[in-house]
Amino acid sequence: MSARRVLKRTTRAAPKAKVQRAVDARDHSLFVNSIEKAITVLNSFSRERPLLTHAAITKLTGLDKSAAQRFLYTLHQLGLLRKHEDTKQYSLSPRLLEFAYAYTYSDGLIERAQPFLVEAHEKTGETVNLNVLEGTDVLLVSRIPSQQLVTMNIQVGFRMPALYSAAGRAIVARLPAKQRDHVIGTTKYQKYTDEAISSPKEMRGLIEKVAKEGYVLSQSQFFKGDISVGVAIVDGSDAVLGGLCLSVPRARMTVQDAREKLVPVAITAARKISLTMGAY
Amino acid sequence: MSARRVLKRTTRAAPKAKVQRAVDARDHSLFVNSIEKAITVLNSFSRERPLLTHAAITKLTGLDKSAAQRFLYTLHQLGLLRKHEDTKQYSLSPRLLEFAYAYTYSDGLIERAQPFLVEAHEKTGETVNLNVLEGTDVLLVSRIPSQQLVTMNIQVGFRMPALYSAAGRAIVARLPAKQRDHVIGTTKYQKYTDEAISSPKEMRGLIEKVAKEGYVLSQSQFFKGDISVGVAIVDGSDAVLGGLCLSVPRARMTVQDAREKLVPVAITAARKISLTMGAY
Repeated sequence: MSARRVLKRTTRAAPKAKVQRAVDARDHSLFVNSIEKAITVLNSFSRERPLLTHAAITKLTGLDKSAAQRFLYTLHQLGLLRKHEDTKQYSLSPRLLEFAYAYTYSDGLIERAQPFLVEAHEKTGETVNLNVLEGTDVLLVSRIPSQQLVTMNIQVGFRMPALYSAAGRAIVARLPAKQRDHVIGTTKYQKYTDEAISSPKEMRGLIEKVAKEGYVLSQSQFFKGDISVGVAIVDGSDAVLGGLCLSVPRARMTVQDAREKLVPVAITAARKISLTMGAY
Repeated sequence: MSARRVLKRTTRAAPKAKVQRAVDARDHSLFVNSIEKAITVLNSFSRERPLLTHAAITKLTGLDKSAAQRFLYTLHQLGLLRKHEDTKQYSLSPRLLEFAYAYTYSDGLIERAQPFLVEAHEKTGETVNLNVLEGTDVLLVSRIPSQQLVTMNIQVGFRMPALYSAAGRAIVARLPAKQRDHVIGTTKYQKYTDEAISSPKEMRGLIEKVAKEGYVLSQSQFFKGDISVGVAIVDGSDAVLGGLCLSVPRARMTVQDAREKLVPVAITAARKISLTMGAY
Protein backbone atom coordinates (compact mmCIF):
# COMPACT_ATOMS: atom_id res chain seq x y z
CA MET A 1 0.00 0.00 0.00
CA SER A 2 1.33 3.41 -0.92
CA ALA A 3 2.05 6.10 1.62
CA ARG A 4 -0.57 8.25 -0.03
CA ARG A 5 -3.33 5.68 0.35
CA VAL A 6 -2.47 5.05 3.97
CA LEU A 7 -2.48 8.74 4.67
CA LYS A 8 -5.72 9.27 2.89
CA ARG A 9 -7.36 6.64 4.97
CA THR A 10 -5.89 7.76 8.25
CA THR A 11 -6.27 11.44 7.58
CA ARG A 12 -7.74 13.10 10.58
CA ALA A 13 -11.43 13.81 10.57
CA ALA A 14 -12.84 17.28 10.94
CA PRO A 15 -10.89 18.92 13.77
CA LYS A 16 -13.87 19.23 16.07
CA ALA A 17 -14.47 15.50 16.07
CA LYS A 18 -10.82 14.87 16.91
CA VAL A 19 -10.73 16.09 20.48
CA GLN A 20 -11.47 13.13 22.71
CA ARG A 21 -13.25 13.78 25.96
CA ALA A 22 -16.33 12.96 27.95
CA VAL A 23 -19.40 14.34 26.27
CA ASP A 24 -20.41 16.43 29.25
CA ALA A 25 -16.94 17.73 30.04
CA ARG A 26 -17.59 20.99 28.22
CA ASP A 27 -20.28 21.87 30.74
CA HIS A 28 -18.16 21.01 33.75
CA SER A 29 -17.21 24.12 35.68
CA LEU A 30 -13.55 23.06 35.69
CA PHE A 31 -13.34 22.76 31.91
CA VAL A 32 -11.39 25.58 30.22
CA ASN A 33 -13.00 25.90 26.80
CA SER A 34 -10.26 28.02 25.30
CA ILE A 35 -7.75 25.16 25.58
CA GLU A 36 -10.00 22.88 23.62
CA LYS A 37 -10.43 25.59 21.00
CA ALA A 38 -6.68 26.09 20.73
CA ILE A 39 -6.25 22.36 20.10
CA THR A 40 -9.03 22.49 17.53
CA VAL A 41 -7.06 25.20 15.73
CA LEU A 42 -3.89 23.05 15.79
CA ASN A 43 -5.89 20.06 14.56
CA SER A 44 -7.11 22.02 11.54
CA PHE A 45 -3.71 21.61 9.93
CA SER A 46 -2.91 18.40 8.12
CA ARG A 47 -0.90 17.03 5.24
CA GLU A 48 -3.64 18.14 2.85
CA ARG A 49 -3.93 21.52 4.60
CA PRO A 50 -0.43 22.47 5.76
CA LEU A 51 -0.98 26.21 5.23
CA LEU A 52 -4.13 27.95 6.40
CA THR A 53 -5.26 31.55 6.45
CA HIS A 54 -7.30 33.15 9.20
CA ALA A 55 -10.40 32.76 7.01
CA ALA A 56 -9.72 29.07 6.40
CA ILE A 57 -9.23 28.44 10.12
CA THR A 58 -12.50 30.22 10.87
CA LYS A 59 -14.30 27.97 8.40
CA LEU A 60 -12.64 24.72 9.51
CA THR A 61 -13.04 25.22 13.24
CA GLY A 62 -16.46 26.83 13.36
CA LEU A 63 -14.99 29.51 15.63
CA ASP A 64 -16.09 33.05 15.02
CA LYS A 65 -13.66 35.29 13.22
CA SER A 66 -12.41 37.24 16.21
CA ALA A 67 -12.00 34.12 18.35
CA ALA A 68 -10.00 32.43 15.59
CA GLN A 69 -7.82 35.53 15.40
CA ARG A 70 -7.12 35.42 19.12
CA PHE A 71 -6.15 31.76 19.02
CA LEU A 72 -3.95 32.22 15.96
CA TYR A 73 -2.24 35.21 17.54
CA THR A 74 -1.65 33.35 20.82
CA LEU A 75 -0.42 30.10 19.25
CA HIS A 76 1.92 32.12 17.05
CA GLN A 77 3.24 34.08 20.02
CA LEU A 78 3.80 30.85 21.92
CA GLY A 79 5.81 29.47 19.02
CA LEU A 80 3.42 26.64 18.14
CA LEU A 81 2.38 28.14 14.81
CA ARG A 82 4.53 29.77 12.17
CA LYS A 83 3.26 32.81 10.29
CA HIS A 84 4.17 33.42 6.65
CA GLU A 85 3.98 37.18 6.41
CA ASP A 86 3.96 37.30 2.62
CA THR A 87 0.93 35.02 2.17
CA LYS A 88 -0.76 35.64 5.57
CA GLN A 89 -0.85 31.88 6.06
CA TYR A 90 -0.07 29.90 9.19
CA SER A 91 1.55 26.48 9.50
CA LEU A 92 2.42 24.13 12.37
CA SER A 93 5.78 24.81 14.00
CA PRO A 94 8.52 22.25 14.61
CA ARG A 95 8.24 23.20 18.29
CA LEU A 96 5.36 20.71 18.41
CA LEU A 97 8.07 18.06 18.17
CA GLU A 98 9.24 19.15 21.59
CA PHE A 99 6.02 17.90 23.16
CA ALA A 100 6.72 14.51 21.63
CA TYR A 101 10.26 14.67 22.97
CA ALA A 102 9.00 15.57 26.45
CA TYR A 103 6.54 12.70 26.41
CA THR A 104 9.13 10.22 25.14
CA TYR A 105 11.57 11.17 27.86
CA SER A 106 9.04 11.11 30.65
CA ASP A 107 7.68 7.68 29.72
CA GLY A 108 9.59 4.95 31.52
CA LEU A 109 8.33 2.21 29.20
CA ILE A 110 9.86 3.77 26.09
CA GLU A 111 13.22 4.33 27.72
CA ARG A 112 13.47 0.92 29.33
CA ALA A 113 12.21 -0.87 26.23
CA GLN A 114 14.74 0.78 23.92
CA PRO A 115 17.73 -1.60 24.36
CA PHE A 116 15.47 -4.64 23.92
CA LEU A 117 13.89 -3.18 20.80
CA VAL A 118 17.39 -2.67 19.42
CA GLU A 119 18.34 -6.22 20.38
CA ALA A 120 15.27 -7.64 18.61
CA HIS A 121 16.10 -5.53 15.57
CA GLU A 122 19.71 -6.73 15.52
CA LYS A 123 18.68 -10.36 15.82
CA THR A 124 16.24 -10.16 12.92
CA GLY A 125 17.17 -7.11 10.84
CA GLU A 126 13.46 -6.29 10.72
CA THR A 127 11.26 -3.42 11.84
CA VAL A 128 10.47 -3.34 15.56
CA ASN A 129 7.58 -1.23 16.89
CA LEU A 130 6.38 -0.35 20.36
CA ASN A 131 2.69 0.54 20.68
CA VAL A 132 0.40 1.68 23.47
CA LEU A 133 -3.38 1.55 23.68
CA GLU A 134 -5.37 4.79 23.39
CA GLY A 135 -9.10 4.05 23.52
CA THR A 136 -9.70 1.51 20.77
CA ASP A 137 -6.57 2.55 18.84
CA VAL A 138 -2.90 1.92 19.26
CA LEU A 139 -0.34 4.69 19.00
CA LEU A 140 3.17 4.01 17.77
CA VAL A 141 5.49 5.33 20.49
CA SER A 142 8.86 3.96 19.36
CA ARG A 143 10.17 2.42 16.17
CA ILE A 144 13.34 0.92 14.82
CA PRO A 145 12.83 0.55 11.08
CA SER A 146 14.53 -2.10 8.98
CA GLN A 147 17.15 -0.67 6.67
CA GLN A 148 14.87 -1.39 3.75
CA LEU A 149 11.92 0.40 5.25
CA VAL A 150 12.51 4.00 6.13
CA THR A 151 9.17 5.29 4.94
CA MET A 152 7.30 8.47 5.71
CA ASN A 153 3.94 6.81 6.08
CA ILE A 154 4.56 5.23 9.47
CA GLN A 155 6.26 7.27 12.15
CA VAL A 156 6.08 7.74 15.86
CA GLY A 157 2.64 9.20 16.63
CA PHE A 158 0.93 7.03 14.01
CA ARG A 159 -2.50 5.81 15.11
CA MET A 160 -4.43 2.78 13.90
CA PRO A 161 -7.26 0.59 15.24
CA ALA A 162 -5.83 -1.73 17.92
CA LEU A 163 -7.61 -4.80 16.57
CA TYR A 164 -5.96 -4.40 13.16
CA SER A 165 -2.48 -4.18 14.66
CA ALA A 166 -0.52 -7.24 15.84
CA ALA A 167 0.73 -5.38 18.91
CA GLY A 168 -2.80 -4.06 19.50
CA ARG A 169 -4.35 -7.52 19.40
CA ALA A 170 -1.73 -8.76 21.87
CA ILE A 171 -2.57 -5.81 24.14
CA VAL A 172 -6.33 -6.33 23.91
CA ALA A 173 -5.96 -10.05 24.67
CA ARG A 174 -4.28 -9.15 27.99
CA LEU A 175 -6.89 -6.59 29.09
CA PRO A 176 -9.39 -7.31 31.89
CA ALA A 177 -12.55 -8.85 30.43
CA LYS A 178 -14.64 -5.68 30.66
CA GLN A 179 -12.11 -3.50 28.85
CA ARG A 180 -11.47 -6.20 26.28
CA ASP A 181 -15.19 -6.43 25.57
CA HIS A 182 -15.34 -2.67 25.25
CA VAL A 183 -12.62 -2.57 22.58
CA ILE A 184 -14.09 -5.51 20.68
CA GLY A 185 -17.58 -4.05 20.96
CA THR A 186 -16.85 -0.49 19.89
CA THR A 187 -14.18 -0.92 17.20
CA LYS A 188 -15.29 0.01 13.70
CA TYR A 189 -14.66 -3.14 11.70
CA GLN A 190 -13.41 -2.47 8.19
CA LYS A 191 -12.01 -4.40 5.27
CA TYR A 192 -8.76 -2.44 5.25
CA THR A 193 -7.37 -5.26 3.08
CA ASP A 194 -8.87 -8.34 1.46
CA GLU A 195 -7.59 -10.42 4.35
CA ALA A 196 -8.69 -8.08 7.15
CA ILE A 197 -11.09 -9.61 9.68
CA SER A 198 -14.32 -7.64 9.62
CA SER A 199 -16.61 -9.71 11.80
CA PRO A 200 -16.69 -8.91 15.53
CA LYS A 201 -17.47 -12.55 16.25
CA GLU A 202 -14.44 -13.78 14.36
CA MET A 203 -12.30 -11.10 16.03
CA ARG A 204 -13.51 -12.19 19.46
CA GLY A 205 -12.55 -15.81 18.75
CA LEU A 206 -9.15 -14.70 17.53
CA ILE A 207 -8.47 -12.56 20.61
CA GLU A 208 -9.39 -15.51 22.85
CA LYS A 209 -6.88 -17.62 20.94
CA VAL A 210 -4.23 -14.91 21.39
CA ALA A 211 -4.93 -14.80 25.13
CA LYS A 212 -4.18 -18.51 25.31
CA GLU A 213 -1.13 -18.55 23.02
CA GLY A 214 0.49 -15.35 24.28
CA TYR A 215 1.39 -13.95 20.87
CA VAL A 216 -0.16 -12.73 17.61
CA LEU A 217 0.88 -13.72 14.13
CA SER A 218 -1.09 -11.75 11.56
CA GLN A 219 -0.91 -10.91 7.88
CA SER A 220 -2.20 -7.98 5.84
CA GLN A 221 -4.79 -6.77 8.33
CA PHE A 222 -4.25 -3.04 7.85
CA PHE A 223 -1.30 -2.80 5.46
CA LYS A 224 -1.25 -5.06 2.48
CA GLY A 225 1.60 -7.53 2.37
CA ASP A 226 3.01 -7.53 5.87
CA ILE A 227 3.55 -10.35 8.33
CA SER A 228 3.48 -9.07 11.90
CA VAL A 229 4.18 -10.67 15.23
CA GLY A 230 2.83 -9.00 18.38
CA VAL A 231 3.42 -9.67 22.07
CA ALA A 232 2.07 -7.75 25.09
CA ILE A 233 4.24 -6.07 27.72
CA VAL A 234 3.03 -6.18 31.33
CA ASP A 235 4.08 -4.86 34.72
CA GLY A 236 4.27 -6.39 38.19
CA SER A 237 0.51 -6.23 38.71
CA ASP A 238 0.00 -7.94 35.34
CA ALA A 239 -1.45 -4.73 33.90
CA VAL A 240 -0.73 -4.42 30.17
CA LEU A 241 1.54 -1.48 29.38
CA GLY A 242 1.91 -1.85 25.63
CA GLY A 243 2.78 -4.20 22.85
CA LEU A 244 5.87 -5.00 20.85
CA CYS A 245 5.59 -5.85 17.19
CA LEU A 246 8.06 -7.33 14.72
CA SER A 247 7.03 -6.70 11.16
CA VAL A 248 8.34 -7.92 7.80
CA PRO A 249 7.15 -7.61 4.19
CA ARG A 250 5.67 -10.90 3.00
CA ALA A 251 7.97 -10.73 0.00
CA ARG A 252 10.94 -11.39 2.30
CA MET A 253 9.62 -14.14 4.54
CA THR A 254 7.10 -16.98 4.62
CA VAL A 255 4.60 -17.28 7.46
CA GLN A 256 6.37 -20.44 8.60
CA ASP A 257 9.72 -18.62 8.72
CA ALA A 258 8.13 -15.77 10.63
CA ARG A 259 6.74 -18.25 13.15
CA GLU A 260 10.13 -19.87 13.62
CA LYS A 261 12.33 -16.79 13.49
CA LEU A 262 10.28 -13.80 14.64
CA VAL A 263 7.94 -15.24 17.28
CA PRO A 264 10.68 -16.40 19.71
CA VAL A 265 12.54 -13.08 19.35
CA ALA A 266 9.36 -11.07 19.97
CA ILE A 267 8.39 -13.17 23.00
CA THR A 268 11.89 -12.86 24.49
CA ALA A 269 12.05 -9.10 23.92
CA ALA A 270 8.57 -8.50 25.38
CA ARG A 271 9.43 -10.69 28.36
CA LYS A 272 12.67 -8.79 29.01
CA ILE A 273 10.88 -5.46 28.81
CA SER A 274 8.13 -6.72 31.13
CA LEU A 275 10.80 -7.78 33.63
CA THR A 276 12.37 -4.31 33.63
CA MET A 277 8.87 -2.89 34.19
CA GLY A 278 8.43 -4.95 37.36
CA ALA A 279 6.87 -8.16 36.04
CA TYR A 280 8.14 -11.40 37.52
CA MET B 1 29.05 11.39 26.55
CA SER B 2 26.42 9.37 28.34
CA ALA B 3 22.72 9.82 27.72
CA ARG B 4 22.31 10.89 31.31
CA ARG B 5 24.84 13.68 31.05
CA VAL B 6 23.36 14.98 27.82
CA LEU B 7 19.91 14.95 29.31
CA LYS B 8 21.06 16.65 32.45
CA ARG B 9 22.54 19.43 30.41
CA THR B 10 19.61 19.81 28.09
CA THR B 11 16.95 19.42 30.73
CA ARG B 12 14.34 22.05 30.30
CA ALA B 13 14.50 25.08 32.50
CA ALA B 14 11.72 26.09 34.83
CA PRO B 15 8.48 25.77 32.85
CA LYS B 16 7.70 29.45 32.93
CA ALA B 17 10.94 30.38 31.25
CA LYS B 18 10.29 27.84 28.50
CA VAL B 19 7.45 29.52 26.68
CA GLN B 20 8.95 31.65 23.96
CA ARG B 21 7.15 34.81 23.01
CA ALA B 22 7.46 38.54 22.72
CA VAL B 23 7.76 40.12 26.16
CA ASP B 24 4.71 42.30 25.72
CA ALA B 25 2.50 39.66 24.12
CA ARG B 26 0.80 38.87 27.40
CA ASP B 27 -0.64 42.35 27.53
CA HIS B 28 -1.87 42.29 23.96
CA SER B 29 -5.66 42.18 23.83
CA LEU B 30 -5.51 39.21 21.42
CA PHE B 31 -3.40 37.07 23.71
CA VAL B 32 -5.33 34.22 25.39
CA ASN B 33 -3.54 33.70 28.70
CA SER B 34 -5.13 30.36 29.48
CA ILE B 35 -3.38 28.74 26.49
CA GLU B 36 -0.01 29.84 27.76
CA LYS B 37 -0.89 28.50 31.20
CA ALA B 38 -1.94 25.14 29.75
CA ILE B 39 1.43 24.89 28.00
CA THR B 40 3.18 25.84 31.21
CA VAL B 41 1.41 22.92 32.88
CA LEU B 42 2.53 20.53 30.10
CA ASN B 43 6.08 21.90 30.35
CA SER B 44 6.19 21.08 34.08
CA PHE B 45 6.65 17.42 33.24
CA SER B 46 10.10 16.16 32.34
CA ARG B 47 12.27 13.10 32.56
CA GLU B 48 13.11 13.99 36.16
CA ARG B 49 9.47 14.77 36.93
CA PRO B 50 7.34 12.35 34.87
CA LEU B 51 4.60 12.11 37.50
CA LEU B 52 3.19 15.17 39.20
CA THR B 53 0.37 15.74 41.67
CA HIS B 54 -1.94 18.73 41.68
CA ALA B 55 0.13 20.21 44.54
CA ALA B 56 3.41 19.73 42.64
CA ILE B 57 1.96 21.38 39.52
CA THR B 58 0.76 24.31 41.60
CA LYS B 59 4.26 24.77 42.99
CA LEU B 60 6.08 24.33 39.67
CA THR B 61 3.88 26.59 37.59
CA GLY B 62 3.17 29.33 40.10
CA LEU B 63 -0.53 29.03 39.23
CA ASP B 64 -2.98 29.24 42.08
CA LYS B 65 -4.44 25.97 43.27
CA SER B 66 -7.84 26.28 41.65
CA ALA B 67 -6.39 27.45 38.33
CA ALA B 68 -4.00 24.49 38.31
CA GLN B 69 -6.94 22.20 38.98
CA ARG B 70 -8.89 23.61 36.03
CA PHE B 71 -5.94 23.16 33.66
CA LEU B 72 -5.23 19.63 34.87
CA TYR B 73 -8.89 18.70 34.54
CA THR B 74 -9.11 20.15 31.03
CA LEU B 75 -5.85 18.66 29.74
CA HIS B 76 -6.90 15.29 31.13
CA GLN B 77 -10.34 15.56 29.50
CA LEU B 78 -8.69 16.47 26.21
CA GLY B 79 -6.48 13.38 26.44
CA LEU B 80 -3.16 15.24 26.72
CA LEU B 81 -2.53 14.17 30.31
CA ARG B 82 -3.01 10.78 31.91
CA LYS B 83 -4.35 10.51 35.43
CA HIS B 84 -3.23 7.75 37.78
CA GLU B 85 -6.24 7.34 40.04
CA ASP B 86 -4.41 5.34 42.70
CA THR B 87 -1.64 7.89 43.31
CA LYS B 88 -3.52 11.04 42.21
CA GLN B 89 -0.60 11.82 39.89
CA TYR B 90 -0.67 13.04 36.31
CA SER B 91 1.71 12.24 33.46
CA LEU B 92 2.05 13.30 29.83
CA SER B 93 -0.04 11.28 27.39
CA PRO B 94 1.24 9.61 24.21
CA ARG B 95 -1.34 11.70 22.39
CA LEU B 96 1.27 14.45 22.41
CA LEU B 97 3.05 12.35 19.79
CA GLU B 98 0.17 13.07 17.47
CA PHE B 99 1.10 16.74 17.36
CA ALA B 100 4.56 15.71 16.23
CA TYR B 101 3.02 13.46 13.63
CA ALA B 102 0.77 16.26 12.37
CA TYR B 103 3.71 18.62 12.11
CA THR B 104 5.89 16.06 10.35
CA TYR B 105 3.21 15.36 7.77
CA SER B 106 2.40 18.97 7.11
CA ASP B 107 6.01 20.00 6.61
CA GLY B 108 7.00 19.69 2.96
CA LEU B 109 10.74 19.82 3.71
CA ILE B 110 10.67 16.69 5.89
CA GLU B 111 8.68 14.69 3.38
CA ARG B 112 10.67 15.74 0.34
CA ALA B 113 13.99 15.35 2.12
CA GLN B 114 13.26 11.80 3.28
CA PRO B 115 14.41 9.81 0.21
CA PHE B 116 17.64 11.81 0.02
CA LEU B 117 18.33 11.29 3.72
CA VAL B 118 17.87 7.56 3.15
CA GLU B 119 20.16 7.70 0.11
CA ALA B 120 22.88 9.48 2.11
CA HIS B 121 22.48 6.91 4.87
CA GLU B 122 22.75 4.01 2.44
CA LYS B 123 25.87 5.45 0.81
CA THR B 124 27.66 5.91 4.13
CA GLY B 125 25.97 3.67 6.69
CA GLU B 126 26.12 6.62 9.09
CA THR B 127 23.61 8.73 10.97
CA VAL B 128 21.83 11.37 8.90
CA ASN B 129 19.99 14.26 10.59
CA LEU B 130 17.74 17.02 9.33
CA ASN B 131 17.61 20.17 11.46
CA VAL B 132 15.73 23.45 11.33
CA LEU B 133 16.53 26.74 13.03
CA GLU B 134 14.37 27.89 15.96
CA GLY B 135 15.71 31.14 17.38
CA THR B 136 19.37 30.48 18.16
CA ASP B 137 18.80 26.72 18.46
CA VAL B 138 18.35 23.94 15.97
CA LEU B 139 15.62 21.34 16.34
CA LEU B 140 16.08 17.81 15.02
CA VAL B 141 13.11 17.18 12.72
CA SER B 142 14.12 13.92 11.05
CA ARG B 143 16.76 11.30 11.72
CA ILE B 144 18.03 8.09 10.22
CA PRO B 145 20.34 6.55 12.81
CA SER B 146 23.24 4.30 11.95
CA GLN B 147 22.67 0.70 12.96
CA GLN B 148 25.22 1.13 15.72
CA LEU B 149 23.57 4.19 17.14
CA VAL B 150 19.99 3.78 18.19
CA THR B 151 20.21 5.78 21.39
CA MET B 152 17.55 7.40 23.49
CA ASN B 153 19.46 10.61 24.07
CA ILE B 154 18.94 12.07 20.62
CA GLN B 155 15.53 11.85 19.03
CA VAL B 156 13.30 13.94 16.84
CA GLY B 157 12.41 17.06 18.85
CA PHE B 158 15.91 17.34 20.33
CA ARG B 159 17.09 20.94 20.64
CA MET B 160 20.66 22.24 20.82
CA PRO B 161 22.41 25.58 20.20
CA ALA B 162 22.71 26.09 16.42
CA LEU B 163 26.33 27.20 16.59
CA TYR B 164 27.38 23.94 18.27
CA SER B 165 25.70 21.81 15.60
CA ALA B 166 27.25 21.15 12.19
CA ALA B 167 23.87 21.54 10.47
CA GLY B 168 23.22 24.66 12.57
CA ARG B 169 26.49 26.30 11.55
CA ALA B 170 25.72 25.57 7.91
CA ILE B 171 22.29 27.15 8.37
CA VAL B 172 23.62 30.24 10.15
CA ALA B 173 26.28 30.75 7.46
CA ARG B 174 23.50 31.02 4.85
CA LEU B 175 21.35 33.50 6.79
CA PRO B 176 21.05 37.16 5.78
CA ALA B 177 23.76 39.22 7.55
CA LYS B 178 21.40 40.72 10.12
CA GLN B 179 19.97 37.39 11.24
CA ARG B 180 23.41 35.79 11.22
CA ASP B 181 24.73 38.55 13.46
CA HIS B 182 21.77 38.07 15.77
CA VAL B 183 22.47 34.36 16.25
CA ILE B 184 26.21 34.91 16.70
CA GLY B 185 25.58 37.81 19.06
CA THR B 186 22.97 36.21 21.32
CA THR B 187 24.15 32.59 21.56
CA LYS B 188 25.37 31.56 24.99
CA TYR B 189 28.89 30.29 24.32
CA GLN B 190 29.84 27.30 26.42
CA LYS B 191 32.65 24.77 26.65
CA TYR B 192 30.33 21.82 26.08
CA THR B 193 33.48 19.83 25.32
CA ASP B 194 37.20 20.58 25.53
CA GLU B 195 37.20 21.29 21.82
CA ALA B 196 34.08 23.44 21.74
CA ILE B 197 34.57 26.97 20.42
CA SER B 198 33.62 29.41 23.16
CA SER B 199 34.76 32.73 21.73
CA PRO B 200 32.20 34.71 19.68
CA LYS B 201 35.06 36.15 17.63
CA GLU B 202 36.41 32.74 16.71
CA MET B 203 32.88 31.55 15.96
CA ARG B 204 32.29 34.53 13.66
CA GLY B 205 35.47 33.76 11.72
CA LEU B 206 34.46 30.12 11.41
CA ILE B 207 30.96 30.97 10.14
CA GLU B 208 32.50 33.27 7.50
CA LYS B 209 34.70 30.39 6.38
CA VAL B 210 31.67 28.11 6.19
CA ALA B 211 29.81 30.69 4.09
CA LYS B 212 32.67 30.57 1.58
CA GLU B 213 33.23 26.81 1.57
CA GLY B 214 29.58 25.76 1.62
CA TYR B 215 29.94 23.03 4.24
CA VAL B 216 30.88 22.43 7.87
CA LEU B 217 33.26 19.80 9.16
CA SER B 218 33.32 19.86 12.95
CA GLN B 219 34.44 17.64 15.80
CA SER B 220 33.27 17.30 19.40
CA GLN B 221 31.57 20.65 19.66
CA PHE B 222 28.56 19.52 21.71
CA PHE B 223 28.94 15.75 21.96
CA LYS B 224 32.33 14.36 22.76
CA GLY B 225 33.89 12.20 20.08
CA ASP B 226 31.80 12.91 16.99
CA ILE B 227 32.81 14.09 13.55
CA SER B 228 29.95 15.90 11.84
CA VAL B 229 29.45 17.30 8.38
CA GLY B 230 26.74 19.92 7.83
CA VAL B 231 25.31 21.48 4.67
CA ALA B 232 22.47 24.01 4.34
CA ILE B 233 19.27 23.40 2.37
CA VAL B 234 17.80 26.37 0.48
CA ASP B 235 14.76 27.15 -1.64
CA GLY B 236 14.25 29.02 -4.90
CA SER B 237 14.64 32.42 -3.27
CA ASP B 238 17.88 31.23 -1.65
CA ALA B 239 16.23 31.31 1.79
CA VAL B 240 17.70 28.68 4.08
CA LEU B 241 15.15 26.01 5.07
CA GLY B 242 17.28 23.75 7.22
CA GLY B 243 20.48 21.80 7.40
CA LEU B 244 21.51 18.24 6.76
CA CYS B 245 24.14 16.61 8.93
CA LEU B 246 26.11 13.39 8.55
CA SER B 247 27.59 12.27 11.82
CA VAL B 248 30.04 9.54 12.77
CA PRO B 249 31.86 8.55 15.98
CA ARG B 250 35.52 9.53 15.76
CA ALA B 251 36.42 5.97 16.72
CA ARG B 252 35.18 4.80 13.33
CA MET B 253 36.62 7.42 10.99
CA THR B 254 39.49 9.89 10.70
CA VAL B 255 38.84 13.53 9.87
CA GLN B 256 40.54 13.03 6.52
CA ASP B 257 38.26 10.08 5.71
CA ALA B 258 35.23 12.11 6.77
CA ARG B 259 36.32 14.90 4.44
CA GLU B 260 36.73 12.51 1.53
CA LYS B 261 33.75 10.26 2.15
CA LEU B 262 31.09 12.24 4.02
CA VAL B 263 31.46 15.77 2.65
CA PRO B 264 30.62 14.92 -0.99
CA VAL B 265 27.64 12.79 0.09
CA ALA B 266 26.31 15.55 2.36
CA ILE B 267 26.74 18.22 -0.33
CA THR B 268 25.00 16.07 -2.94
CA ALA B 269 22.10 15.20 -0.63
CA ALA B 270 21.58 18.82 0.47
CA ARG B 271 21.73 19.93 -3.15
CA LYS B 272 19.14 17.36 -4.22
CA ILE B 273 16.81 18.37 -1.39
CA SER B 274 17.28 22.05 -2.26
CA LEU B 275 16.35 21.28 -5.88
CA THR B 276 13.12 19.57 -4.80
CA MET B 277 12.37 22.63 -2.65
CA GLY B 278 12.59 24.92 -5.68
CA ALA B 279 16.26 25.91 -5.72
CA TYR B 280 17.97 26.03 -9.09
